[in-house]
Amino acid sequence: MKINAFAAEQESAPLTAWSFDTPELHCQDCVIRVSACGICHSDVHMIDNDWAISAYPLVPGHEIVGEIVEVGCGVSHLKVGDRVGVGWLKSACLHCEDCLEGNENLCDNNQPTIVGNHGGFADHVVTDSRFAFKIPSGLETKSVGPLLCGGITVFGALHYAGMTSGQRIGIIGVGGLGHMAVQFAAKMGNHVTAFTTSQDKAEFAAQLGAHDAIVVDGDSFSHQPSKKFDILLTTVPAALKVDPYMEMLASDGTLSYVGVGETHIKIPFLPLLQKRRRVMASPTGGRAMINHMLEVADTHGVAPIVEVFPFKQVNDAIAKVRDGSIRYRAVLMD
Amino acid sequence: MKINAFAAEQESAPLTAWSFDTPELHCQDCVIRVSACGICHSDVHMIDNDWAISAYPLVPGHEIVGEIVEVGCGVSHLKVGDRVGVGWLKSACLHCEDCLEGNENLCDNNQPTIVGNHGGFADHVVTDSRFAFKIPSGLETKSVGPLLCGGITVFGALHYAGMTSGQRIGIIGVGGLGHMAVQFAAKMGNHVTAFTTSQDKAEFAAQLGAHDAIVVDGDSFSHQPSKKFDILLTTVPAALKVDPYMEMLASDGTLSYVGVGETHIKIPFLPLLQKRRRVMASPTGGRAMINHMLEVADTHGVAPIVEVFPFKQVNDAIAKVRDGSIRYRAVLMD
Repeated sequence: MKINAFAAEQESAPLTAWSFDTPELHCQDCVIRVSACGICHSDVHMIDNDWAISAYPLVPGHEIVGEIVEVGCGVSHLKVGDRVGVGWLKSACLHCEDCLEGNENLCDNNQPTIVGNHGGFADHVVTDSRFAFKIPSGLETKSVGPLLCGGITVFGALHYAGMTSGQRIGIIGVGGLGHMAVQFAAKMGNHVTAFTTSQDKAEFAAQLGAHDAIVVDGDSFSHQPSKKFDILLTTVPAALKVDPYMEMLASDGTLSYVGVGETHIKIPFLPLLQKRRRVMASPTGGRAMINHMLEVADTHGVAPIVEVFPFKQVNDAIAKVRDGSIRYRAVLMD
Repeated sequence: MKINAFAAEQESAPLTAWSFDTPELHCQDCVIRVSACGICHSDVHMIDNDWAISAYPLVPGHEIVGEIVEVGCGVSHLKVGDRVGVGWLKSACLHCEDCLEGNENLCDNNQPTIVGNHGGFADHVVTDSRFAFKIPSGLETKSVGPLLCGGITVFGALHYAGMTSGQRIGIIGVGGLGHMAVQFAAKMGNHVTAFTTSQDKAEFAAQLGAHDAIVVDGDSFSHQPSKKFDILLTTVPAALKVDPYMEMLASDGTLSYVGVGETHIKIPFLPLLQKRRRVMASPTGGRAMINHMLEVADTHGVAPIVEVFPFKQVNDAIAKVRDGSIRYRAVLMD
C-alpha cells in the first residue's frame, strides 16, 4: 500500500503531492487514517530547515487526528476504529529517569513526529501507538490537532509553574498559543489578564474568558494590573523585555516561557531576589499530561479557534501561518 | 540608662566606643542584654554606606544573641531570662499579604535591624520582641548569630527551591554562607556536592558532610558530578557563569541564588527549556522559617565555624571580614 502525502522536495519548497510505501508495522505501531492535521510554525521551520535537522522529501504535520485502521501485535490499549491524536513526539526511550517519571518530553532520546519520519500531511500515518492518544468524544476533530501541540505546551507550562485555581494569571501574547492559554487558565478557575499589542485582540481575549486585557505599545502599558500575578506565561516568539513584567509578579511568582526565545534571557536580579520570584521554561508535555489536558479541554470546553483548509490547499494555509495572519491555528481537513 | 556601643562616626570609619540613651520601650519591645554578636559582610556594607542608606553614628550588628532583661506591656511570648536571637529584620508591617503568609522577609515595609536603628555591637539592644526568637537550649551562644543571618538565608533558599531529602544538592562556594548550606543539606538527608576554588576547602567541605567536592579553576572543573542536581545553590558574592552549572541540573532542577549578584543574570535559554529547569533567588527568611531553621540546627547539630573576638577587638574582626580571611564567620563575645 502507498501513503499519499504532501511533501517538500527540498528546503523551503512548496509542498507537492508525493507518495511512499507504507512503512513496516512494528509490534507497538498503529496505522492511523488521518482525518485532520493542524499546521504549526514548527512545520514551517522544518520545511525551511531552520534547525538543520530536516530530511527531504519532508512530510510535515505533527498535530494529527484520525482513526485507527490497524494495530501491531503488541498494542492492547487502542483498537481499530478509535479516534486518536498524535502530537510533537513520536517516541521516547521509556526507560530513562525522565520517561519513568512521565516526562517523555524531557527524554534525551525522544523522537519528534516529523524528524526522520513522515508526518500528518498525508492520508495515513504509521506511528508508535504509545504516543497516540484516545480523544474524548466531546472534542471536535478540527480542534484536536492544535491542542496536541500548542495546547499541551501552554497547559504544561502553566501546570509546572504551579497553576491551581483562584490565582492571578497573566498571559503575554494572544496568538496561536496564547489564545489557548487564556482559555485554560480562565476555565480552570483563575483570574486572567491578557497582554497584547492590539486592541482587537484585547477584545477577543475577553471573549475567551480573560478578565482584563492590557495593551502593550513598545515600553508602555495601557494600564497596570489591579493585583500582581502568581504566574506570568509568555507565549511570544520574540525576545521579551523582562524587567517590567518581573515587577508585576507577586511574591513567589513564576515567569514561565514556552517556545524558543533568545540564546540567553536577561533577568533583573534584585526584583528576583526581593520577592523570591522564579523564572522557568517548559517544552510540550509528557503522555500523562497530554491525557490530562485532553480531559480538561473536554470538560471545560477549551478549543482553539481554527481556520480549516482542504488538504489540497496546504500551500495557502502554510502561507498564512508563515506570515502570521492565521487566526489562530490552521487545520487541514477534507 | 545609657547603652554602650561601638559605632562608626562616619562613612568607612573605624568603630569607636559610643553611648546613647536607651530608647523608649514600646508595648511590643524587649530589652536584650547582648551576649554575642556575629559580624556579617552586610555590616561592612553599612559601615561603608555602600547602599546609601546608612545613618551615623552607626552601630552595626544584626546577628545578635542575648538575654531578655525587660519586656514591654504587650509581650507575652518572651519573659525576662529567656535566651533570644535577633537577625537581619527588626520589624515588618504584619498586615500585608506577604506578612500574613509568614513572609515578613518579603514585606515592602519591613525594617532591617541596623537601618535607622542601633544594632548589636553594644551591651544592650531594644527591639521589637516579635522579631526576637527563643533559642533552643542545644545551640551554643557563639553559633546563634551566624545562623540568624547566613544560616537562615541558605536554609530558606534551599527550602523554597524545593529541598526535601534524598536529593542531589550542589552548593557553589564554601564560605560564610556555603559552609552552613553544606551542613543543612547533608544533615537533612541529601547527597551534597560542594564547588570551591580551593583544594583546602574541598577537604573542609568533606568534614562538613559533603559527599563530593568539585574544584573549580576558571572555566574548568576537577571532574563532573556523578549525577545531575535537583538543586544548585550559589552562595558566591561574584557574578556566576551560569552556563556550565545549568547543564548540571536535572530535569525540573532549580538554580537558587542568595545574596546580591549582578544587575541582570544571563540564563542560557535552551537548557532552561529542554529540561524544564528553574532559576530563583531567595532573601533571608520569615519568622516561621527562622524558628524551623533553629529547630533543625539544634536537632542535627548544624553550627557555623566561627572565630571569636572580644568586643573591644571589633576593628580587628571587621578587618578579617572585609578582606575575606575570616574562617568562616566572625563573632564578638566577651
